[in-house]
Amino acid sequence: MQADALSATFAALADPTRRAILARLAGGERSVKELAEPFAMSLPAVSKHLKVLEKAHLIERGREAQWRPCKLAPEPLKDAASWIDQYRRFWEESLDRLDAYLKELQEKQPDGPKQ
Amino acid sequence: MQADALSATFAALADPTRRAILARLAGGERSVKELAEPFAMSLPAVSKHLKVLEKAHLIERGREAQWRPCKLAPEPLKDAASWIDQYRRFWEESLDRLDAYLKELQEKQPDGPKQ
Repeated sequence: MQADALSATFAALADPTRRAILARLAGGERSVKELAEPFAMSLPAVSKHLKVLEKAHLIERGREAQWRPCKLAPEPLKDAASWIDQYRRFWEESLDRLDAYLKELQEKQPDGPKQ
Repeated sequence: MQADALSATFAALADPTRRAILARLAGGERSVKELAEPFAMSLPAVSKHLKVLEKAHLIERGREAQWRPCKLAPEPLKDAASWIDQYRRFWEESLDRLDAYLKELQEKQPDGPKQ
């Protein structure tokens, strides 16, 4: 686990099972057992993923000894979204360029429908 | 490196040096030498980070033998932003709750300014 929070967030998200766990928690609190059900995975394997998510502050866990429900903690996702958002103009520009290119192709097409 | 594209993107972003490299490329194409300059890092160490970014399709490299400029490739960032954006309502809700709580505190304060 890296020291800085943003690296910890991205590292935690870099796994399809952990992303699927967050998606399930978007539906509400779940116990570890409930979270393990849809995955062909042992409880200890799921617990390991939950520890990574918890260390990255992406989930919080209840303090009840028997049933420690997991809950989505969205703050780190907000910071990750803000970081990525700095690059928005780049992907929007490349979509604009693709759009302009497709229009150009369409105009060159002699028999194509005009819009 | 994980098989799925989103995991590869998040894993590539989970490192402060790689994020700093992307930030520099937001200013335009750069050679490996130019990218290495601000970091107290050897060319091979920087090259290793560039390989991770290239495998994750976050950068593209020119084909010139001598000078292979690196260029930001924003598409995977768009997909990462879309994934995170599914959770936007959660962090917006928690900000709303914090806001409501602060207003409540302010109203309870007998000498506090009313708004």
